[in-house]
Amino acid sequence: MKRKSYYRLPAGVQDLLPDECYNLNTIEEKLEKKFSLAGCSRVQSAALEFYDTYAEIKNKIPQKKMFKLTDGDGSLLVLRPDMTLAVARMAATADIALPSKLCYFSNVWDYAGAGSYTIREIYQAGVEFLGVSNAFSDAQAIAFAIECLQAIGLKDFIIDVGHAGFFKGILEECALDAEEVEKVRLLVNAKDAVGAQALLEKHGAPKKASDALAALPTLFGGVDVLSRAEKYAGTPASREALDRLKKVYDLLKQFGLEKYVSFDLGTVKDLSYYSGVVFTGLTRSIGSAILSGGRYDNLADDFGRHVPAVGFAMGLKRILIALERQGALRPAAPQADVVLFSEEGAEAKAYQAYLELTEAGRRVDLLAADTFSTEDLKNAGIVVLKATKKGVEKL
Amino acid sequence: MKRKSYYRLPAGVQDLLPDECYNLNTIEEKLEKKFSLAGCSRVQSAALEFYDTYAEIKNKIPQKKMFKLTDGDGSLLVLRPDMTLAVARMAATADIALPSKLCYFSNVWDYAGAGSYTIREIYQAGVEFLGVSNAFSDAQAIAFAIECLQAIGLKDFIIDVGHAGFFKGILEECALDAEEVEKVRLLVNAKDAVGAQALLEKHGAPKKASDALAALPTLFGGVDVLSRAEKYAGTPASREALDRLKKVYDLLKQFGLEKYVSFDLGTVKDLSYYSGVVFTGLTRSIGSAILSGGRYDNLADDFGRHVPAVGFAMGLKRILIALERQGALRPAAPQADVVLFSEEGAEAKAYQAYLELTEAGRRVDLLAADTFSTEDLKNAGIVVLKATKKGVEKL
Repeated sequence: MKRKSYYRLPAGVQDLLPDECYNLNTIEEKLEKKFSLAGCSRVQSAALEFYDTYAEIKNKIPQKKMFKLTDGDGSLLVLRPDMTLAVARMAATADIALPSKLCYFSNVWDYAGAGSYTIREIYQAGVEFLGVSNAFSDAQAIAFAIECLQAIGLKDFIIDVGHAGFFKGILEECALDAEEVEKVRLLVNAKDAVGAQALLEKHGAPKKASDALAALPTLFGGVDVLSRAEKYAGTPASREALDRLKKVYDLLKQFGLEKYVSFDLGTVKDLSYYSGVVFTGLTRSIGSAILSGGRYDNLADDFGRHVPAVGFAMGLKRILIALERQGALRPAAPQADVVLFSEEGAEAKAYQAYLELTEAGRRVDLLAADTFSTEDLKNAGIVVLKATKKGVEKL
Repeated sequence: MKRKSYYRLPAGVQDLLPDECYNLNTIEEKLEKKFSLAGCSRVQSAALEFYDTYAEIKNKIPQKKMFKLTDGDGSLLVLRPDMTLAVARMAATADIALPSKLCYFSNVWDYAGAGSYTIREIYQAGVEFLGVSNAFSDAQAIAFAIECLQAIGLKDFIIDVGHAGFFKGILEECALDAEEVEKVRLLVNAKDAVGAQALLEKHGAPKKASDALAALPTLFGGVDVLSRAEKYAGTPASREALDRLKKVYDLLKQFGLEKYVSFDLGTVKDLSYYSGVVFTGLTRSIGSAILSGGRYDNLADDFGRHVPAVGFAMGLKRILIALERQGALRPAAPQADVVLFSEEGAEAKAYQAYLELTEAGRRVDLLAADTFSTEDLKNAGIVVLKATKKGVEKL
């Protein structure tokens, strides 16, 4: 029979077959346990939302990042582009009690799907700590990110920490309007310091701001970054950002986690809603971030409630790739401990045996067919049973 | 702050807040265990697919049931409309070893979203038994459906069994082309026997076929339906269908499950791909089907491989409603056993206590804020701990 061409999938999306799904579920189970032990409650937001929800807010999602479709009544819908926004919307509109820890396992969709591992359907696990605003909660979120990556079994990773306020502080004395600040932010995010400086100079920004901007891409590395950055912290906002980072680092050191932490003050993130500490999980095993998070104290304001919050999301498919490269994935376990088949007329005996064995916790593949190799199964350590009219026998 | 109107969600989709999510996850965990014990392997298909995948096959999904969107290269995409089709596609194109039991937890989207509980984003758990074709596998699928609903804790349900071949058999001698058969099928599905008869008579179909069609809506109830139906089984295909149903019923009786089974030969299902036994899970607690399945031996042919198969999907949100009406839902457990907060300067002690307690399996909400009522927490049976510079004390 000819395989038809239209089984192909659209760019950037994929099926997960049993082996991949097995490994993904193993990660999920570990994270579910971790989330549950840390007092997080699961939420699930609708995958379809109104375009206006994300386009008419202050911290808008760029139009070109959203999959758009039209509903029967003419309204424009999008596929959920971001879980943090969805959680902020729920926290604001569903009056979730504060403080609260929420978590999710959800797809988000990115129409643009940039990056070296272009995935447009992104499966994320994440947590949001709502109603907390102090440095302790920043440190706690970063510590929890480390715990989660450890729980998954990832090695050789680092959490790279920055602060949205440091960059914003630099621009504070430049008299740029919000739109221009966003332009500069996108240039900095694209690591285009020259372009960012040119834009600042065009607006007659002070040399000190332009110099600080030029220095941003160099302000990464160990904790010494925080002292190196001091001379560029010329405004109250940028000084405040540095002070906060020092406090957070101090706490992480007290938690014994400093070896997992590096700094990058040039990190300004793809999305504009971050208001404080931001952080990115990196591993040498893959060239893209595996975890991304930060503080977003004003995001829920867009939906009518002030909810200071900090959180992060992990890209589970990217983490799977990293784990595979670290040799940390195990082949999927056989789907059953026991394969049980039945000769004709012994089906009731077979079903009874299946019920008893599964009751006892054995994984039993009750097979209506006998088109399999008993030898292969036995070599894989699987018990093969056959129900006959006389009873159930082991082969 | 004013709550903005655009937090609303599109028609037929919804968020699941912590309480609902808790109950949904409880169901999921029970099904995951059930699926795993029965030797099922998880798969996850892409949520976005090409329109052509479902529009150009023999067993097409009606255009008006699909959410459609356009990709950057002009290709037309749809949100996954059906998991059985997606699994058949994967089984055919990914050369999944047969026989095999696959399972999934996935959304499907139905643009039309008809029915009294209009949900257009439908969260399903399902299984597909691939590579099996005998009556035993039909009975096994129905038995497993019963086991799953029992495992979830649903009471007062029935599995209503029919056979796609009985209806098709009736039409066998009517010389209708495929398109006309599909028209009749949709009329029967809409319980419009008069319209279906009129269409048959227009095509000069024999009176005996027209009579059988008129009788279809009456052929429901206990196992006596199978004998009542005999006089309408005038073609080899409809007789074969009745014989198969008798065999399946006999097996289910041997399994001790006959009390969960009723028959409805008028069931022809929404979708056209069923080729044999079909079944629907019903409970008096909700006016819509909570489970739907059947045999679809020729579906994967559409993707280039012959894979006889039988399976079913459960609508988990509908099951939640049914369980709620049966009083079987428990309020969400508190999100933690212990709430632990810290005075300033004792964060390291608090973090250490959190690590030790979670290591021991306690669910610990380490709180960066202290804006909660200790009394309320204690009344809810939650231990409240406070970390001070001297150590961790119980409040």
